[in-house]
Amino acid sequence: MDEQWMGEAIELAQKAAEAEDTPIGAVIVYEGRVIGRGYNKRNALGNSLAHAEIEAINEAAGVIGDWRLEETTMYVTLEPCPMCAGAIVQSRMTKVVIGAMNPKAGCAVSVVNLLQHDGFNHRAEVVSGVRQEECANLMKTFFAKLRERDKAAKQGGAEHGEEQSTGSN
Amino acid sequence: MDEQWMGEAIELAQKAAEAEDTPIGAVIVYEGRVIGRGYNKRNALGNSLAHAEIEAINEAAGVIGDWRLEETTMYVTLEPCPMCAGAIVQSRMTKVVIGAMNPKAGCAVSVVNLLQHDGFNHRAEVVSGVRQEECANLMKTFFAKLRERDKAAKQGGAEHGEEQSTGSN
Repeated sequence: MDEQWMGEAIELAQKAAEAEDTPIGAVIVYEGRVIGRGYNKRNALGNSLAHAEIEAINEAAGVIGDWRLEETTMYVTLEPCPMCAGAIVQSRMTKVVIGAMNPKAGCAVSVVNLLQHDGFNHRAEVVSGVRQEECANLMKTFFAKLRERDKAAKQGGAEHGEEQSTGSN
Repeated sequence: MDEQWMGEAIELAQKAAEAEDTPIGAVIVYEGRVIGRGYNKRNALGNSLAHAEIEAINEAAGVIGDWRLEETTMYVTLEPCPMCAGAIVQSRMTKVVIGAMNPKAGCAVSVVNLLQHDGFNHRAEVVSGVRQEECANLMKTFFAKLRERDKAAKQGGAEHGEEQSTGSN
């Protein structure tokens, strides 16, 4: 089942890529059904809070009708950042299933382990590497396209004697 | 000026207490004016994301029109939790001014220092202890009232031969 739910998260990540946001998707599963879905909309909405995990938690809290999301599992294509890992701890989710790791900012294992930190009053079970290659490839493809576009923009700008910005990170 | 802006955060925290949520308030200041306000509504909205800092960041992003909140300062009555500290780093805020510390879950100093972590690509300046006693007293008074109410409810319940819950954390 983990592979299937991660598939839903991957589909959501693709929606982010289509809108030119970093392709990250997340679903929250409770009693065998999805109660929260999200994909990264940081650039689309101009809001640092609009990460996939935050959107999914927001929807799930509405469905459950409480801030406690106990007995739920999040499937997310990329290892959560500090904000999202903190939100997972705050909402007392039981389990987090991760696709690809994020060595630069991940807070399940990579930079700090917030999901299983002794200092907090909640710890989540963590499973990683589910459909890892597909999740990592989403990111690689996205950033390769961005670099190509930046290069093309710079060449175009040089021809016209000006610098151009793509508006990407 | 720090004392004055913290005063606005304290007023917001009092609104949270009136609604029976843990009294935490935050404002975000940019170029000498407040562009984001928030107070804790976790119980009121049944949503773990409804922390004071998140509400303030959400409003500020709308005002600035971008996810980057560079050159802004947050004034917050209590040391931010992991989620909120992460959100501050994600939105690249310049400075965070803290009232009281939170030894159980604070992520500026107490449990983990997320605001100035070498592993992330942004670090915020941190000032703490501004109107500390007032901020700490807000919390003490709130929890003392909760304990009294719990005690009264238990006594009432015992008289009626039943247990009662206050719905508090």
